Amino acid sequence: MIDAFDSFIQKLEPQLRTWRRELHQQPELGFLEYQTTYKVAKELEELGFTIHVGKEAVQSDSRYGVPLEHEIQEAERQALENGVPEDWIDAMQGSHTGVVAKWDTGREGPHLAFRFDIDALPILESNEPEHKPHTDHFRSTQNGIMHACGHDGHTTIGLGLAHLIAHFQSQLTGTFTLLFQPAEEGGRGAKAMVDKGWLEGVDQFYSGHIGINSLPVGTIAASTEGFLASAKWNVTFSGQSSHAGMKPEDGRNALLAAATTATQLHAIPRHSEGISRVNVGKLVAGNGRNIIADSGYLEIETRGQTKAINEFMQKEAKRIIQSSASMYDVKVDIEFVGETEKMTCDRALIPLIQEQCQQSAWVNHIDPVAYVSGSEDASFMMNAVQANGGKATYMLFGTHLPSNHHSPAFDFEEEVIPVALAAYAHVLRGGSS
Amino acid sequence: MIDAFDSFIQKLEPQLRTWRRELHQQPELGFLEYQTTYKVAKELEELGFTIHVGKEAVQSDSRYGVPLEHEIQEAERQALENGVPEDWIDAMQGSHTGVVAKWDTGREGPHLAFRFDIDALPILESNEPEHKPHTDHFRSTQNGIMHACGHDGHTTIGLGLAHLIAHFQSQLTGTFTLLFQPAEEGGRGAKAMVDKGWLEGVDQFYSGHIGINSLPVGTIAASTEGFLASAKWNVTFSGQSSHAGMKPEDGRNALLAAATTATQLHAIPRHSEGISRVNVGKLVAGNGRNIIADSGYLEIETRGQTKAINEFMQKEAKRIIQSSASMYDVKVDIEFVGETEKMTCDRALIPLIQEQCQQSAWVNHIDPVAYVSGSEDASFMMNAVQANGGKATYMLFGTHLPSNHHSPAFDFEEEVIPVALAAYAHVLRGGSS
Amino acid sequence: MIDAFDSFIQKLEPQLRTWRRELHQQPELGFLEYQTTYKVAKELEELGFTIHVGKEAVQSDSRYGVPLEHEIQEAERQALENGVPEDWIDAMQGSHTGVVAKWDTGREGPHLAFRFDIDALPILESNEPEHKPHTDHFRSTQNGIMHACGHDGHTTIGLGLAHLIAHFQSQLTGTFTLLFQPAEEGGRGAKAMVDKGWLEGVDQFYSGHIGINSLPVGTIAASTEGFLASAKWNVTFSGQSSHAGMKPEDGRNALLAAATTATQLHAIPRHSEGISRVNVGKLVAGNGRNIIADSGYLEIETRGQTKAINEFMQKEAKRIIQSSASMYDVKVDIEFVGETEKMTCDRALIPLIQEQCQQSAWVNHIDPVAYVSGSEDASFMMNAVQANGGKATYMLFGTHLPSNHHSPAFDFEEEVIPVALAAYAHVLRGGSS
Amino acid sequence: MIDAFDSFIQKLEPQLRTWRRELHQQPELGFLEYQTTYKVAKELEELGFTIHVGKEAVQSDSRYGVPLEHEIQEAERQALENGVPEDWIDAMQGSHTGVVAKWDTGREGPHLAFRFDIDALPILESNEPEHKPHTDHFRSTQNGIMHACGHDGHTTIGLGLAHLIAHFQSQLTGTFTLLFQPAEEGGRGAKAMVDKGWLEGVDQFYSGHIGINSLPVGTIAASTEGFLASAKWNVTFSGQSSHAGMKPEDGRNALLAAATTATQLHAIPRHSEGISRVNVGKLVAGNGRNIIADSGYLEIETRGQTKAINEFMQKEAKRIIQSSASMYDVKVDIEFVGETEKMTCDRALIPLIQEQCQQSAWVNHIDPVAYVSGSEDASFMMNAVQANGGKATYMLFGTHLPSNHHSPAFDFEEEVIPVALAAYAHVLRGGSS
Repeated sequence: MIDAFDSFIQKLEPQLRTWRRELHQQPELGFLEYQTTYKVAKELEELGFTIHVGKEAVQSDSRYGVPLEHEIQEAERQALENGVPEDWIDAMQGSHTGVVAKWDTGREGPHLAFRFDIDALPILESNEPEHKPHTDHFRSTQNGIMHACGHDGHTTIGLGLAHLIAHFQSQLTGTFTLLFQPAEEGGRGAKAMVDKGWLEGVDQFYSGHIGINSLPVGTIAASTEGFLASAKWNVTFSGQSSHAGMKPEDGRNALLAAATTATQLHAIPRHSEGISRVNVGKLVAGNGRNIIADSGYLEIETRGQTKAINEFMQKEAKRIIQSSASMYDVKVDIEFVGETEKMTCDRALIPLIQEQCQQSAWVNHIDPVAYVSGSEDASFMMNAVQANGGKATYMLFGTHLPSNHHSPAFDFEEEVIPVALAAYAHVLRGGSS
Repeated sequence: MIDAFDSFIQKLEPQLRTWRRELHQQPELGFLEYQTTYKVAKELEELGFTIHVGKEAVQSDSRYGVPLEHEIQEAERQALENGVPEDWIDAMQGSHTGVVAKWDTGREGPHLAFRFDIDALPILESNEPEHKPHTDHFRSTQNGIMHACGHDGHTTIGLGLAHLIAHFQSQLTGTFTLLFQPAEEGGRGAKAMVDKGWLEGVDQFYSGHIGINSLPVGTIAASTEGFLASAKWNVTFSGQSSHAGMKPEDGRNALLAAATTATQLHAIPRHSEGISRVNVGKLVAGNGRNIIADSGYLEIETRGQTKAINEFMQKEAKRIIQSSASMYDVKVDIEFVGETEKMTCDRALIPLIQEQCQQSAWVNHIDPVAYVSGSEDASFMMNAVQANGGKATYMLFGTHLPSNHHSPAFDFEEEVIPVALAAYAHVLRGGSS
Repeated sequence: MIDAFDSFIQKLEPQLRTWRRELHQQPELGFLEYQTTYKVAKELEELGFTIHVGKEAVQSDSRYGVPLEHEIQEAERQALENGVPEDWIDAMQGSHTGVVAKWDTGREGPHLAFRFDIDALPILESNEPEHKPHTDHFRSTQNGIMHACGHDGHTTIGLGLAHLIAHFQSQLTGTFTLLFQPAEEGGRGAKAMVDKGWLEGVDQFYSGHIGINSLPVGTIAASTEGFLASAKWNVTFSGQSSHAGMKPEDGRNALLAAATTATQLHAIPRHSEGISRVNVGKLVAGNGRNIIADSGYLEIETRGQTKAINEFMQKEAKRIIQSSASMYDVKVDIEFVGETEKMTCDRALIPLIQEQCQQSAWVNHIDPVAYVSGSEDASFMMNAVQANGGKATYMLFGTHLPSNHHSPAFDFEEEVIPVALAAYAHVLRGGSS
Repeated sequence: MIDAFDSFIQKLEPQLRTWRRELHQQPELGFLEYQTTYKVAKELEELGFTIHVGKEAVQSDSRYGVPLEHEIQEAERQALENGVPEDWIDAMQGSHTGVVAKWDTGREGPHLAFRFDIDALPILESNEPEHKPHTDHFRSTQNGIMHACGHDGHTTIGLGLAHLIAHFQSQLTGTFTLLFQPAEEGGRGAKAMVDKGWLEGVDQFYSGHIGINSLPVGTIAASTEGFLASAKWNVTFSGQSSHAGMKPEDGRNALLAAATTATQLHAIPRHSEGISRVNVGKLVAGNGRNIIADSGYLEIETRGQTKAINEFMQKEAKRIIQSSASMYDVKVDIEFVGETEKMTCDRALIPLIQEQCQQSAWVNHIDPVAYVSGSEDASFMMNAVQANGGKATYMLFGTHLPSNHHSPAFDFEEEVIPVALAAYAHVLRGGSS
């Protein structure tokens, strides 16, 4: 049967590459993945999966950072224009993107869940000659939006796994849930699937990431340590505009409040008990050159190796934001828009993964643990599974990285896709046997 | 004849109000005044003026801060949609807005020029109950664009003056040039009309402003002192994006460079020899919350009571901008996008204005000089006229102001419009007699 | 009699130079002028003036910014060491420096007051070859203390005027009060003399300054416009120290609170209604390199062309200081330590000064008004005199300045001293006649 | 023999407490430990050790951050006043403090070195009722100087170890070097002893610290991980003073350059590969309130978990310092004044320590490794020993800590002193057997 899995994947490889490149060309931001959701759901429906989209898939009020109304409408308009049927758009209406697909073998066995994140990032993709998606003509067609974190690869792996399940259905036992999650960036989408109950009764949960650490293709890690708890906020300062030449003293400068917040937030003390992070990723303030700015907007994020450290960061950040507002006599609104939790992979899954994956010809080397940083809202799913007695892990799939995640020249070796698919496939066989 | 002028204006008053409110509802940003230009030019053409628009009116490469290509296209598209004929749009294509209208009486006499600025500001107009344009239903229909400086009034005065010239043509002597100038805000449009040669041969130049100082309607000032020399720049920082959680040290943070620039620019020392100003009116930086920002953009402005003070401000600002860039190891591009000069009104015009205007029933009180601040690119026109031996002044037309210029609740008393028109009309009679 | 005054001053000139250089070599900071006070008081006592020192001269609790106990003790120790008798030190004990000297001619006539400020600044005097006090060997002997504002000259003029009064006593009428005021820098000493009642009953008040504007020797100004209202504060932040390597997160960083205050204070908006100033002149924070700083101390000053502008500056400054404290979670104490008021010279004195001074061969040119900036606590005295119906002015005495006031290479032309003395002398004759 | 060691220490305990309290009352800053050096050297000389002080003990030009001349002279004056003989002061003259004491048993055996740091910190000791040194009357007698890191304890342990060696001399083999190192704070003294050659030929090197982690007395750690590489700099900005009211634009503000540096340094990105630190511990700028500050001085420190991270911090810091200088157009001088290296304890020593120390009744529990942060210039000594084939470790001696190291209320349980002495004693027996 090993041979069968490996060789099925080998035959699927050209299709995997095609899927990945199609997805790469049509990236969509978090909670705006109308076209990606349709593409995935349609494919899985045809394979025989039971499909759940829209408010069946995600809990409406558990979503963080839902886009603005006009952004949603524009995305729905474009989806329609690009061939997504109207009834599908109706189902997803108002940013209810993402798919949950279930397969019940009808035979007794454990319930395994696999999670794939599908959203892209607001980055203008590189058009440098050394950037392969550019030279091989599958660069993003969406100006300023890019799959710069590899979720196009993740979605492709999920499509491959679905085909494999359908193909080998007669030999499998138990139940499989495939979660194609929206809005992972910013920690905004996972909780909405958790709160809909999709992780209840799951015995084993698997997710993972392409890259992160730059490793040779063929190397995988059975678990990870180091993902950080995180919190995401939008901050809006409201001041008073005035003519900058004629009445500067009548202005209450929201731009300076925002700028001061940015520099001072980055100066929050490092924490001695572990990793901490803070970032102001976006700042938009003011209207015109000769007007004292009456508005300032920030998108910020804190992280901590532990929940306590992240709480320290949040406490410091809040005080700095409020003090910056009072410094310039402006009002401030702090909106909580996303979070991830600390995650702990179950060590019990490591030998199981090692045993299964070493039987695959696609996998050369298995690290028991990879040390990473960053944050992942798969943490919500893992914590939900573990709270109910299930086991969960978050894996890594090696590829060399020409450039950092979230940078305009990010790319990965496409050979990692069949490797990751093989790993999940063998895990699936082992887990469900 | 006095009676004739005053009573003509009295009959025109309802029309003046209508024009003003139409213009107020359809504000257009600098160099995007396609609809305003067409409205004015069409009206004057019908009155018998010789009309110059497009590259006849403005010197293409003397314009500062021309909008982005996509903004221009959108404005042209909207103009077409709103009824501006295609050939007119062709004439103005690529942000060549503004009108120069000439009237030659055929009788010997001096050449008088009157200038009216026509552009609006990027401000979201107030919808508070005490804001008259809102309660009287002529609030801006353009989201985030507003006539918040009174240029709708100025344009209306120009339309009124054109009607008066046409009506009283047989009694007038000499030549009249009416300049409807684009892009006054930011000091971007005047030089382009000057460089086209329209101020050559002008004997007397008049321009002026509604409001600025809050004075009763009926009070005018024959000249002003205190307009500041100014310079306008756009600053773009380019850094390196990176994942803010995984590789913060690989980023080069253009957002922090922009934020540091903003706070530090405002700390340039006050100058002991006169008024100085600096403002960062707009700051846009970064892309997403969890990405170290690779871009930062600022719109800034310096002013000085003298050219030397403004040069001091610019020298300080440049060093601070460049040091902020080096502080965060990012690149910076400083683009010069506009300026105004120091202006000096000819005192010789004061008694002439006093003598004429006190004959108008619309004018109650004439201050010889009003003390103001702010900046005006009419300075370019005045300096050009004066360099050729002509005389020039910049007047003020009193109105109480419920809110500062450039603020969302800015408004003026509409009764100021006939007063200003009457002042110009009598000056015109006196100047051309 | 004119000849008599002028020629008396000519004979006194070598002595004036000697006094000035002795004072320059022995500068003393505000409220620590033990030796200067003694030198002046002794000299005037011998001339026959009635002398008031210590708590007779200054109101103890009206002094602002009294030095620290150990600074006072050190100054008293040094004064003793340098020959000030013990009973004099006892009289001045605890920073009660300054002298009030009175001369009653016994003949009816007005009461004229002349004020001279006697304190120096915490500046290390230049030892560059072009600095005359250095090359002519009368540079400050006190390390880091310097007469960098010309008060050595002012004190000398006062000594000269006292000699002139004594010499010409039989020809004079009325009463003369000479106020040798301590602690002008920082606006700390004048109010203490006012509150002691020394300005009551004064009919005319004269004070003035060497330099300020760089003018030729021989030119004087009968009055000044432009001195600013000002306020002086000391600000102390108290945080929590912690090991910067081991427990940075336990610190509450008073150094960063102080540093943030400094940069943000300088960014207070310029005021459209007139001149404003703000300065953080001193910042001392922290203890050791590897300790999070638990202390931060600032000396700041605001100024405004009007009382209202200065109040605006103070309001802004206070909010910024308090916000900086809350930003770093530290405590703050704001101590008010000095002020000056807006001053208005009586125009009625101008023709009187012009008439008298043009009779002196020492004076070449008399400007009715000089336009200045800076602040002066003579304003307290002038306002007190004017409140009681007297008249007051503040004059200027021209000298070219090689370097700014309050800079290490400040100096003035010694020839200004007899000119200033001649001006006061003739004013005195005119005033008291 | 175990009993002999333990009971010797028990008898010594009252003396240990006395020594510690005497040292605590007379703290001395780095390179000013004249009295401490004399006290230790005198004691060890009397025991029979061969003593090396002054330029024999430390390499003159390898010292970092030697105090200012006047500080040195004052310390030498005080030492003389407090009974240090003149010839001892001559030997140490010019900040050559510290002692190296050698004992050769004359019997073959390994060469063991023990290092004790002896300097104090510029912190004003707490006088709160809960601070034991205050209530038990051994608070620092030196205003603003305090043993706030436990070096008084370390020095005491060294004295105890010397007595034990002298007492048990006949039973010991090999050679012992006791290094009483000056100026550990700031990483300034260790290299000067290393460069003098005192670590050459050392087979085993032991040093350690009281506290750091708060642990019960009786618990020790055989090794530590986590000390950070560090670098220390003094930064001096030189600008131009000017009168803040009259000529603010002529100043070049060194205070704002220093303040900007402070806030921006703290915003250096966190490093993903390990711990980083930065601190500005001291900032002194400006002279007087109404003078634009022409001077600014900072004491800063960077740390990194690896040499590479510390180099990253230094590179960032230098660029920020230089950019702050250029931002305010001031000159800057960056002086390197100290450093510590990364240290790695030899794991081979752990079982040896465990085996020996568990034989002592004073030691209850031995952790093989303690995880710490902070920095230690013992790293220079350890690296020197290891480079020559020797082995080195850095231990921890448990005590509960009422307050952080480097805080005014720092203290430790005095019972840790005999425990640490017992640990060294048994190690010494084991190491030299």
